[in-house]
Amino acid sequence: MNNFVSANNSQMETLKPGVQRRILWLENLMTVVIDFEFPMKEPDPFHTHMHEQITYVAEGEIWFFIEDEKSRLAKGDMIKIPAGAKHTIQTITPHVRLIDSFSPVREDFI
Amino acid sequence: MNNFVSANNSQMETLKPGVQRRILWLENLMTVVIDFEFPMKEPDPFHTHMHEQITYVAEGEIWFFIEDEKSRLAKGDMIKIPAGAKHTIQTITPHVRLIDSFSPVREDFI
Repeated sequence: MNNFVSANNSQMETLKPGVQRRILWLENLMTVVIDFEFPMKEPDPFHTHMHEQITYVAEGEIWFFIEDEKSRLAKGDMIKIPAGAKHTIQTITPHVRLIDSFSPVREDFI
Repeated sequence: MNNFVSANNSQMETLKPGVQRRILWLENLMTVVIDFEFPMKEPDPFHTHMHEQITYVAEGEIWFFIEDEKSRLAKGDMIKIPAGAKHTIQTITPHVRLIDSFSPVREDFI
């Protein structure tokens, strides 16, 4: 392993049961791989942050809620979340993997 | 479809035969889905840019070259490319999908 790579399953952090993530970041860019291992009965509460975010759905299906819009997203879809837009998700399938990129870096994740 | 989403296969742009991409961006963040439909006989030439980059391997396997390091990356791996670091790839499998995120935005891609 070298300085640049975060290989599969290395540095995996368990946030709560069934939710794991791993992170790479630079000065102004962060990418987070986040896995959910359960379908949600309801959406998580809305949240907001000053960081811009773009999410790519790598595996599974989710409902994505942003402001007053609701979209069903599947593997291969992506969505952009402007700074300050309130948003949340609800996982549909038992396994979901999202690739969340942020700028600036989410200092709260480090 | 709404203002935020780029769904699967919408807005797909063919760069050259066997290479397609689609892009979402905000003020300081861009994410590019890029598909390669052939194994490369040799690496692409090294290139460099002032944008920070983080790449997630969504499908397939590649060689990733960055400065004097060479890594074999498979689905689920990710790698960070600091601003100015020379880098390139060589696809190994017939189908590869990379999720490249950049900050600042790659104006040359728009």
